Amino acid sequence: MVLVSEEKVFLNGDIVPLSRALVPIDDRAVLFGDSVFETVRAYGGCPFRLWRHIERLAESCRLTQLALPLSAKEITAAVAALLADNRLDREGDARIRITVTGGPSSGPGGLERPGPTGMFITARPYQPPGEVDYGRGITLAVSGLKRNSSSPLSSVKSGNYLDSMLARQDALDRGSDDAVMLTTAGNLSEATSSNIFLAKDGELMTPNVGCGFLPGVTREAVIELCGRISMPCKAIMEGLDTLMAAHEVFLTNSMFELMPVCRVGTRVLPSCPGPITKRLTAAYRDLIASETPTI
Amino acid sequence: MVLVSEEKVFLNGDIVPLSRALVPIDDRAVLFGDSVFETVRAYGGCPFRLWRHIERLAESCRLTQLALPLSAKEITAAVAALLADNRLDREGDARIRITVTGGPSSGPGGLERPGPTGMFITARPYQPPGEVDYGRGITLAVSGLKRNSSSPLSSVKSGNYLDSMLARQDALDRGSDDAVMLTTAGNLSEATSSNIFLAKDGELMTPNVGCGFLPGVTREAVIELCGRISMPCKAIMEGLDTLMAAHEVFLTNSMFELMPVCRVGTRVLPSCPGPITKRLTAAYRDLIASETPTI
Repeated sequence: MVLVSEEKVFLNGDIVPLSRALVPIDDRAVLFGDSVFETVRAYGGCPFRLWRHIERLAESCRLTQLALPLSAKEITAAVAALLADNRLDREGDARIRITVTGGPSSGPGGLERPGPTGMFITARPYQPPGEVDYGRGITLAVSGLKRNSSSPLSSVKSGNYLDSMLARQDALDRGSDDAVMLTTAGNLSEATSSNIFLAKDGELMTPNVGCGFLPGVTREAVIELCGRISMPCKAIMEGLDTLMAAHEVFLTNSMFELMPVCRVGTRVLPSCPGPITKRLTAAYRDLIASETPTI
Repeated sequence: MVLVSEEKVFLNGDIVPLSRALVPIDDRAVLFGDSVFETVRAYGGCPFRLWRHIERLAESCRLTQLALPLSAKEITAAVAALLADNRLDREGDARIRITVTGGPSSGPGGLERPGPTGMFITARPYQPPGEVDYGRGITLAVSGLKRNSSSPLSSVKSGNYLDSMLARQDALDRGSDDAVMLTTAGNLSEATSSNIFLAKDGELMTPNVGCGFLPGVTREAVIELCGRISMPCKAIMEGLDTLMAAHEVFLTNSMFELMPVCRVGTRVLPSCPGPITKRLTAAYRDLIASETPTI
């Protein structure tokens, strides 16, 4: 007989079994998607740039007028305790999700935000894509669903995630792996859960802040690496034509790091993974290794 | 000693006390706002046009690719049972919220939608505005946050409700009661939780489908009443100028019915409530009386 201990979850100050990690139906996260979150990857028990994710979580709270219920120090301690309780503190990779919920609703329509916010954290084993997947790259459809850059939510990782989900599902239904989204003004924005970079004639580019995307921690780290290796990265506000003329394209997020793109719409990219993608992937892996020494 | 029985909630087939009405943190409604809902007013225990709200809930499910877990007949029976259990089946008004949640998430990022959806229903006493409130009307700010008509969500009452909530909060902070929203294309859309009608030179108008709003059951009933009393109602796709030139403006939703507007931005409306608003309010109340005979 093998005893498997149940997954543990951090919920409002306590670590509880997953089966007891429940939210009241009146929490505004349930009613209105009134929540913000971060997804962090841990390498051998070390979360990569957790402090930066917590800063961003605080910024998301500010933009949505939610109170962050714990300090950065308390969140860091909670994450460490949870990784230990789920035996993810020594080896293998983990996917950590830190969520702030709007808390109980009140008022006739429940639209007022009176009470304390809630917080839960999950930490689960993460199986990264294999080298074969990175070598092949992924395919992108072009979504008809636009990012609304007039909304502060376009730059917040919030619980209002349905647009991205519908764009992703539509891409899957059309035989692609993911979708690239434009803003309502027609500018290149991001994929459904990752930022986008493109290169042409040896020049690297990524959409500028203001293009209705969530500026990811991995995007930021890639731009930082460009500075270190003296590779210019141009911030652009341009339409689909620029993407369609690119020589190489890759996506970034905290979980898969840098993912090459082999096709956009019907256009097969001439180079996948291209030389710039390869160079930055190697630099990123060195960065991870230097910042997350396995315990 | 007074015994107050705890509020009851319908949750996935059972009627449970509110304190036990809980949703797993892994439900996609909690994680992504992956839910749709309807708000229905009951008059003396009779929900007004519940069948129409259920039809709309089914349409919202279709647009967001959620399975409606119960039939219309089962939902109707659940609402009746819940009204009785909460002693709202005989007198007074009630606010009923019927919510379909995305159900448990799965897959590495949790973006896939594998399992059964969930459903909960709440029914609570509703205190309508008084005649003084209807006589005075409400004030509207013009929101800088635009409705994204490229998104199917713009016409779905979904758990992605943060944009409307932020627009409402911004209006409150600026000293108005609510906000009117335009689409990203600049067309008049709706207020944060109600549809909008305007009248000029005796002609009634309301934004056309395609203007990024949720077509409400009350809006539909008002248009139906216009037909009955031979008052033309024009569907428009027009900008803020048209609203700013109106002689009278009113909002509609299932809870407050028709609410006159006395000011938009800095412009005080010349007539509030205006003659058309008064005529339609009287007709709407007759309609309610005819369709919801108190038991």
